[in-house]
Amino acid sequence: MTQIEAARKNIVTDLVRKAAKAEGVSSKKLLSGLRDGSIVIPANNTRHLKKPCAIGKGLRTKINANIGNSPFSKSIREELKKLRVCLKYQADTVMDLSTGDNLKQARRAIIKNSPLPIGTVPVYEVAVNARKNKIPFHEVSLDDILEVLESQAADGVDFFTIHAGVTRRVLDSLKGARRVAGIVSRGGALLAQWIKKNRRENPLYENFDRVLAIAKRYDITLSLGDGLRPGSVCDATDKPQITELKILGELAKRAKAKGVQTMIEGPGHVPINQIEKNVALQKRYCNNAPFYVLGPLVTDVAAGYDHISSAIGAALAGSYGADFLCYVTPSEHLSIPTLDDVKEGLMAYRIAAHSADIAKGVKGAIEWDRTVSKYRKSRTWSKHIGSSMDPERAKAIHQRSKTATKDVCSMCGEYCPLKISEEL
Amino acid sequence: MTQIEAARKNIVTDLVRKAAKAEGVSSKKLLSGLRDGSIVIPANNTRHLKKPCAIGKGLRTKINANIGNSPFSKSIREELKKLRVCLKYQADTVMDLSTGDNLKQARRAIIKNSPLPIGTVPVYEVAVNARKNKIPFHEVSLDDILEVLESQAADGVDFFTIHAGVTRRVLDSLKGARRVAGIVSRGGALLAQWIKKNRRENPLYENFDRVLAIAKRYDITLSLGDGLRPGSVCDATDKPQITELKILGELAKRAKAKGVQTMIEGPGHVPINQIEKNVALQKRYCNNAPFYVLGPLVTDVAAGYDHISSAIGAALAGSYGADFLCYVTPSEHLSIPTLDDVKEGLMAYRIAAHSADIAKGVKGAIEWDRTVSKYRKSRTWSKHIGSSMDPERAKAIHQRSKTATKDVCSMCGEYCPLKISEEL
Repeated sequence: MTQIEAARKNIVTDLVRKAAKAEGVSSKKLLSGLRDGSIVIPANNTRHLKKPCAIGKGLRTKINANIGNSPFSKSIREELKKLRVCLKYQADTVMDLSTGDNLKQARRAIIKNSPLPIGTVPVYEVAVNARKNKIPFHEVSLDDILEVLESQAADGVDFFTIHAGVTRRVLDSLKGARRVAGIVSRGGALLAQWIKKNRRENPLYENFDRVLAIAKRYDITLSLGDGLRPGSVCDATDKPQITELKILGELAKRAKAKGVQTMIEGPGHVPINQIEKNVALQKRYCNNAPFYVLGPLVTDVAAGYDHISSAIGAALAGSYGADFLCYVTPSEHLSIPTLDDVKEGLMAYRIAAHSADIAKGVKGAIEWDRTVSKYRKSRTWSKHIGSSMDPERAKAIHQRSKTATKDVCSMCGEYCPLKISEEL
Repeated sequence: MTQIEAARKNIVTDLVRKAAKAEGVSSKKLLSGLRDGSIVIPANNTRHLKKPCAIGKGLRTKINANIGNSPFSKSIREELKKLRVCLKYQADTVMDLSTGDNLKQARRAIIKNSPLPIGTVPVYEVAVNARKNKIPFHEVSLDDILEVLESQAADGVDFFTIHAGVTRRVLDSLKGARRVAGIVSRGGALLAQWIKKNRRENPLYENFDRVLAIAKRYDITLSLGDGLRPGSVCDATDKPQITELKILGELAKRAKAKGVQTMIEGPGHVPINQIEKNVALQKRYCNNAPFYVLGPLVTDVAAGYDHISSAIGAALAGSYGADFLCYVTPSEHLSIPTLDDVKEGLMAYRIAAHSADIAKGVKGAIEWDRTVSKYRKSRTWSKHIGSSMDPERAKAIHQRSKTATKDVCSMCGEYCPLKISEEL
């Protein structure tokens, strides 16, 4: 029985109980969301997740951190270090996007060491296998793909990104769109290649029921990938993006009918004034399935600072109803992220998620701000710093000044407005 | 003749011509904005600013960087280094917020070395003088204040923050507001102290005409300070804030009538979902005078990362019509900023301002993104990096990977979606 099927029978599973407790909501609320498709709990039924989480409507906005090796940087140890950074700085989920030849070992090591839900993009392994077998990607068969899904499911992956929405029709719409950046999704580009070279429909779309069968067996949550997401603010909200989004909505409906949990991936690069519309369209076309956004970046020009350019869009998307934010690091567009990048990306996204939660009115969110501000006002430095988002960094900055032991900081000194107004 | 008076006579001054050229708009547009009060060009008429800028409706969103020493960190050399960082990373204006005993020398050195407009908060010098004279701030006289204004004006300051809106009525409204953070503006707190201890009205409010007379003589732009800005998201858009805002609107009207350019300062700390309303209220109550916002921070909990928490609010405020963004650095609430902090603050705010300009449809803004994205798509790394916002940092991140000379980066390697889709 999948979580959706259990919810339909009003059964509170251990997983639901655990996720409800972590969230501070009732199990009933989660059951209702599982039933109507507005909430997912990514958890492979062969795993006993130590820190599961529910994602969706009315819940705290969640954060995913991408880690994973690459053909140029294969170390698994390094990726396990990144996983520890993810835990320390409080990611809610982690995606292993490894593309090194040893990606299978990397995935197993990450799953083994992670108390958090782990997601993957299985088509990356298909591509790596093709490379090992010295065949071009478009020569892989449906069975090659399903075998990878099956083996990753058996390994315990909790959610799969599946680019089933990159159909021939969507690719046709690309011609007239005159995009600046074309296709910027790796999975999307690989499937577009397969479709174009074979002059056949996307195998994940044509055989979506077989994908669903595997997902159902392991109760894996599907994250329907947006292969045509805009990779430039100039391309946002265009016909290919919206055509694919509608297809994802139809696929989500089919998944729900089969008892498979589903969320929808979203952009990408979107100007500030189009973000509200993007969230509204996703909710409408996808029947309120959780929306999992990658940023969006609100400008293309900030290479080296894309954790910031995307945190702006993520905060805004979250405030309008996006449920799940995929972080972006300062290395985006330039290089594979370092350990520091993982931390910087996570911190920017915790700010985005929390500020979205304040705006959405998530229960208890603003109470944290009230607590920090009370300590700040009274210049109770240890508690002000201790209750803030990253006490280590706040402490380091505060202590570099000569006034660290006084009740004012080195910015205002005796002209501290808090101290002056307290004395009034 | 002030710039407003010249504009009323349809005279295109050298300053207007220079500012129009820098902005890429017609002088006529600037004259019209100067006349109706929706545009200011902060420039003391005794200075010949090398890089003046116009701020306001329909123009590129501008950025101010605060520098200045403190009682605990008096070095003028250090502040001149910060000024150079401001120039390198493209601040539009700089405020010298020095509060060290040597603040007069610091200000003169900064003005002498700055091609950009310089702003100050004169009441800080009044406070420093009081300390030197060993009298409490509330014992300073109107003449003490006006003398400082006059001497700073003669030094060449281009814009003054004047907290004339902190009136007895505004302070009375504070009682019922049950604020978490009280007063967080230094100038606002000092004036509140003066008012409370003397049981008299704010001298800057009572004698606003004398402030205007000095500003007019030097054509100094007034930046009407928001002494009651919220210092916690819990306090946003409350009665004290809005009561003061309405008073600032009245004062702006009086200034305009006298031919004195005026902008209005804004918060502070504001939840994402209240930012649009804050901008709309300012435009309404202040007759479209340029809005100069400090962030706003969208959460109070991110000490050490407040350049990010505030860049989110600044981008959003800018997209809704705020004209001028005062940066916040990672040291905010903790310490006086370092050179690195100044850089980080500026970069976060350039992202905020540019993404706001894309959303507002400022002429030419999105073209920059188009250029960067075209180079990104074709993996023309030198031009992609060279045309981005901080080529030095982007280059450093890109070069740390082994693939720096190839046409893909170490993130995706051969699975580069741009390369794959190009080959299709």
